[in-house]
Amino acid sequence: MELLKERIRKDGVIKEGNVLKVDSFLNHQMDIALINEMGKEFRRLFPDESINKILTIEASGIGIACITAQYFGCPVVFAKKTQSINIDGEVYSTQIKSFTHNRTYDVIVKKAFLSPQDNILIIDDFLANGCALLGLIDIVKNAGAKIAGAGIVIEKGCQCGGELVRSQGIRVESLAIIDSMDPVSGCKFRDEVKA
Amino acid sequence: MELLKERIRKDGVIKEGNVLKVDSFLNHQMDIALINEMGKEFRRLFPDESINKILTIEASGIGIACITAQYFGCPVVFAKKTQSINIDGEVYSTQIKSFTHNRTYDVIVKKAFLSPQDNILIIDDFLANGCALLGLIDIVKNAGAKIAGAGIVIEKGCQCGGELVRSQGIRVESLAIIDSMDPVSGCKFRDEVKA
Repeated sequence: MELLKERIRKDGVIKEGNVLKVDSFLNHQMDIALINEMGKEFRRLFPDESINKILTIEASGIGIACITAQYFGCPVVFAKKTQSINIDGEVYSTQIKSFTHNRTYDVIVKKAFLSPQDNILIIDDFLANGCALLGLIDIVKNAGAKIAGAGIVIEKGCQCGGELVRSQGIRVESLAIIDSMDPVSGCKFRDEVKA
Repeated sequence: MELLKERIRKDGVIKEGNVLKVDSFLNHQMDIALINEMGKEFRRLFPDESINKILTIEASGIGIACITAQYFGCPVVFAKKTQSINIDGEVYSTQIKSFTHNRTYDVIVKKAFLSPQDNILIIDDFLANGCALLGLIDIVKNAGAKIAGAGIVIEKGCQCGGELVRSQGIRVESLAIIDSMDPVSGCKFRDEVKA
């Protein structure tokens, strides 16, 4: 998605250690007009009319999922990190390791909100090592629901998550795939590598 | 907002201890069409054209804030709980006690995303004791920004948060105010009490 790549080039900040900061428009301050364009693009990439629910994970996936859901006419379910005393009843749960926060979370979705009749589109902001996405896939599979695919805003193509998930036969569509980056030369997007 | 009250009556679940669960449409599974109606209502309640940013707090405020922001044509900033190693630079911070999770969070907003030129609308899903809202107000004041007001989806009128914030001269508009509730007789909304 060219608009997104332009924005990453303009406002993304690359730090040592393969860290890309996009908090000025994506995951702290959120440019809603840009995210609407992402929502339209996810709809174009996943035209399947039977998609009836979007699944994401708190926190930074939620806003992107909600805006995107408008183009699918469906509800959003967000997986929660750690069990809240306000969540009762049975839940699907999985564990997700966060390298950003250097800890492992229990992640839950209430069973009532996923069923074998659902065709789920998973939406998230980042795909790097794939831990979060694999955890969400695990939850959808436990619910017996169908996975239409995963829509990712930024995939770090230099990490193995995308390959891991695609090797399971799951369709992953990333709006920008970054194959390499460094603070001096910037981001190399996959399209640019191919060209 | 009648549509919301109807939905709370229909799908809200009241538990002992003054707990209202709305996780089937608001804060775990999210009914995006309903939240769009909330966004329109917040715009009607806060017509001030100078509102240029919406501030909320992760996680369950984010989706509501993003959908609402479309009616204001402005970006969203969400305050983050606990410091992430991916957040660098200077931040505004405050502490917020969560009674739901029985712990105190450090809550931060990067200084770059709030300025004295901003006129901020705060959006959140619940207002009960007011801790989260007072924390966000604290951050906005530290930034020297103007507070246009706070738009709340559900206010528990039987707790003191709304009164505390309004007594500071801050406009609070809640789409539903619940003055009392119990598992047998259901919710008493403020409009109903007045009538």
